[in-house]
Amino acid sequence: MAAACVVGIDFGTLSGRAVVVRVEDGAELGSAVHEFPHAVIERELPATGERLPRDWALQDPEDYVEVLREAVPAAVAASGVAPEDVVGIAIDFTASTPMPTLADGTPLCALDAFRDRPHAYPKLWKHHAAQGQADRINALAADRGEPWLARYGGRISSEWQFAKALQVLEEDPAVYDAMDRFIEGADWVVWQLSGEETRNACTAGYKGIFQDGYPSAAFLAALDERFAGFVADKLAGPPLAALGSRAGALTARAAAWTGLPEGIAVAAANVDAHVTAPAAQVTGPGQMLMVMGTSTCHMMSADTLAEVPGMCGVVDGGIVPGLWGYEAGQSGVGDIFAWFVDNAVPPRCHDAAAERGIDVHTYLSELAAEQEVGEHGLVALDWHSGNRSVLVDHTLSGLIVGLRLSTGPEDVYRALVEATAFGTRTIIEAFEGAGIAVDELFVAGGLIKNPMIMQVYADVTRRPLHLIDSEQGAALGAAMHAAVAAGAYGDIHAAAGAMGKVRRDVHVPDADRAAAYDRLFAHYARLHDHFGRGGDDVMHALARIGTEAPVLD
Amino acid sequence: MAAACVVGIDFGTLSGRAVVVRVEDGAELGSAVHEFPHAVIERELPATGERLPRDWALQDPEDYVEVLREAVPAAVAASGVAPEDVVGIAIDFTASTPMPTLADGTPLCALDAFRDRPHAYPKLWKHHAAQGQADRINALAADRGEPWLARYGGRISSEWQFAKALQVLEEDPAVYDAMDRFIEGADWVVWQLSGEETRNACTAGYKGIFQDGYPSAAFLAALDERFAGFVADKLAGPPLAALGSRAGALTARAAAWTGLPEGIAVAAANVDAHVTAPAAQVTGPGQMLMVMGTSTCHMMSADTLAEVPGMCGVVDGGIVPGLWGYEAGQSGVGDIFAWFVDNAVPPRCHDAAAERGIDVHTYLSELAAEQEVGEHGLVALDWHSGNRSVLVDHTLSGLIVGLRLSTGPEDVYRALVEATAFGTRTIIEAFEGAGIAVDELFVAGGLIKNPMIMQVYADVTRRPLHLIDSEQGAALGAAMHAAVAAGAYGDIHAAAGAMGKVRRDVHVPDADRAAAYDRLFAHYARLHDHFGRGGDDVMHALARIGTEAPVLD
Repeated sequence: MAAACVVGIDFGTLSGRAVVVRVEDGAELGSAVHEFPHAVIERELPATGERLPRDWALQDPEDYVEVLREAVPAAVAASGVAPEDVVGIAIDFTASTPMPTLADGTPLCALDAFRDRPHAYPKLWKHHAAQGQADRINALAADRGEPWLARYGGRISSEWQFAKALQVLEEDPAVYDAMDRFIEGADWVVWQLSGEETRNACTAGYKGIFQDGYPSAAFLAALDERFAGFVADKLAGPPLAALGSRAGALTARAAAWTGLPEGIAVAAANVDAHVTAPAAQVTGPGQMLMVMGTSTCHMMSADTLAEVPGMCGVVDGGIVPGLWGYEAGQSGVGDIFAWFVDNAVPPRCHDAAAERGIDVHTYLSELAAEQEVGEHGLVALDWHSGNRSVLVDHTLSGLIVGLRLSTGPEDVYRALVEATAFGTRTIIEAFEGAGIAVDELFVAGGLIKNPMIMQVYADVTRRPLHLIDSEQGAALGAAMHAAVAAGAYGDIHAAAGAMGKVRRDVHVPDADRAAAYDRLFAHYARLHDHFGRGGDDVMHALARIGTEAPVLD
Repeated sequence: MAAACVVGIDFGTLSGRAVVVRVEDGAELGSAVHEFPHAVIERELPATGERLPRDWALQDPEDYVEVLREAVPAAVAASGVAPEDVVGIAIDFTASTPMPTLADGTPLCALDAFRDRPHAYPKLWKHHAAQGQADRINALAADRGEPWLARYGGRISSEWQFAKALQVLEEDPAVYDAMDRFIEGADWVVWQLSGEETRNACTAGYKGIFQDGYPSAAFLAALDERFAGFVADKLAGPPLAALGSRAGALTARAAAWTGLPEGIAVAAANVDAHVTAPAAQVTGPGQMLMVMGTSTCHMMSADTLAEVPGMCGVVDGGIVPGLWGYEAGQSGVGDIFAWFVDNAVPPRCHDAAAERGIDVHTYLSELAAEQEVGEHGLVALDWHSGNRSVLVDHTLSGLIVGLRLSTGPEDVYRALVEATAFGTRTIIEAFEGAGIAVDELFVAGGLIKNPMIMQVYADVTRRPLHLIDSEQGAALGAAMHAAVAAGAYGDIHAAAGAMGKVRRDVHVPDADRAAAYDRLFAHYARLHDHFGRGGDDVMHALARIGTEAPVLD
């Protein structure tokens, strides 16, 4: 068994990445990426050229299969591992990315009769055109006092499965009627690998409103009579598949696609952010993992169920079987810094960075790192793409105060970084206020490479930061679940201990800086509540005025 | 008399500009600029190399004389006018720019005994190192209920004469003791031209706390025993010289410097902003002139005395003899736009502007002009260099709210322009709230060339804008006072009618846009009061924290 390996595949927004990992120690032996040929379908439907409405985002499931056919063999080849040494395979996926299929799993969009209908395609997580449906679900759930609503911080998102299903029903009833199943891309890929239709506990819990069961038929009927049977007819099946459980065995067809041995273990699917936790050895209570990229996902497990204000969701076994898995998030983090560099940094900084052969983020970060806390005289609110946790309000917007004629780009850059760190601190305080202690902070995602950003987070949160020691944490996490499904480890804790990778205490808080940040955070918190909780409704008003103004197309 | 001309000289911060103007119709026949060789002395004293403390700003009076010797003859030569046709000369000057002299007008800094002492030099208007003295003057005046305090919006500035004189006394008593006179640069130049020491009503009123008399000896003694005799010993003399009055006749020495006929009329001095009013034909009640450049000065005359909250000052005959002259201002306007272009506009805009051969301001303004009101979804507070009127608080700072990942540079640029227009509207409303009607708006200064900015001001204020039709309004205004002093016109009203230049109704408000701006202004006003009147003290706190943080030099 010393040579035993597993394959993890991370299905992202634009590509799939396969990694071959040694079971014994988590060594990442080879990997390959395959870009989705159709990428994100946002402007027009390729089959017809039909223009898609605003806020739509579709995918083509054929692209997912191509990852199995291309990336997996390429990763195995790159690893030098003999295919027969691979004992299991697992995936993670974006969520919620649900799709309509026939009873045998055939995507509706693959049928000639439906390929010209946008609603027949998978709706990618960032398809935001079901906002009206989400609003009605939320209003009705609040009216009826549905017990599950509090598990989602009081509000479900337009990105989620039920809102998207209701949109299909209302906008293209023929597709709704024709679909036998409405299934997450995550579970659909596992179906293609194993021949078994499963629903994994993570996606169903966080994106499918599964809390000891789905929403009732009475609730669905109150939304729309025709929606009453949605769960019974198109969702429900065997019990949810626990993370790390065996969904089935690799089929002959999937073995042919991947070049892997028929019959090896296929694990239940998982969500990309959540699967990263064990890869960073985050499997215990009191440990929070932040996956910091364009946005930040905060994940942590706990022994107890609590209602954390503004969390995205709490799910039984949602991250680690046997524990309550909590998710919270910040809608804008790295993308705010990217927006700033693209739109608000003058030529002199671009030139100076180019001269030194570094990127503008690195250049500004180095200048910002030289400053004392508060020296720039700024405080910002990091709501440039709204606020997920703890306010759950996507109409909010960014603010900066303290601008002077002496304010430079590195000042604003640092203030924006600090604002996102204050946002994380707000989330941590919400957890602790609800009785869920956050003892340790782990970080994964692209931003771990920026030491200035990491140091600000350590100082603002007064916690040492432990950084994941893998550049493909999601795929590694998936591979670890494959190892558990294959029986190589008894549970994910054991797999994490052997295969997970973390560097501890990479950035530790400085007491003086932390004290100085306490003062700035007090200002942030006051602005946060004033503009976020109704003290001044200007952000909503500006969004309304901006929407009303005729926009030139 | 058809050929009769006058010379006006505008003494700015870095140079003096002389203009030769025909008395009959105000035609500007020739001009010349002379840069001050010493410019602004901010870092070290040229005589010794001594490093000056922060916030100091001195000048060398020899530079002023050079303007008389160089710019005036050059302007006359450029005009083609025979020197003997020049019948009068007048100047305007920055203020408050006071200097210590001997009884005969010799600047102390021109004496070998004092040339190595910083306090012997003129303190330029932007010398801000007397803030401590100003604070004590304000506190004491408030304590004692000094009647003049309300005439200055409740607060005098560190830029003004008394604060600077007290700084001399406290920091270099030897200079204080040696100076026989403490006199504004404006009046000192007139002294050099005419041989007569005068104090003009404008500078004395706005910058010298002259309100039916100077502050009392008892008040001065309460500040510092040694200061009790300041007015009697070093300021007071004959009654203040009304604007447009004849200070004296051109001396033989000054005739030799300037090449003008000895004995022609020399008018009383004036302040640069105020002297521009008659050049734009602004001499009547209900007419407000805005001089819009790096900052904006708002000037208007009225029949009645009122206490306008947050005004800079109200002075009897301060702009036009016989009327109460009001001044208000915004500390940052064009310099906010310049800061933005220098610090927050990305390379693509600079490149696009360069490709079209236009400057970045023009480029952004053209893009911004295409937007509907409110389309950008932003509101800003224009306090990047504090707020002069109506809050009189230089520790305030800039704010912007409504930022999104879709926000572009032209959006922020327009929001900043609008913020300054909202600032002007706030000032207009303060005047009207105090019973001083603002019926008409006139504009001078560099920003009149930007049609986008002008249109925003017309829409936000709901008033047509009348633009001065001269590029050297201050010097033209000075020349008009010379014509009055020479007896060519009975008063400044008559001179303005004949020699002033204005284009009326160049930008007129649009009713729909004005209504849309009313909604945005309501948000501005609420933010203005929240951050400016104590609802949230974050701006002061950030300034304190920023000051406390060790700054690397």
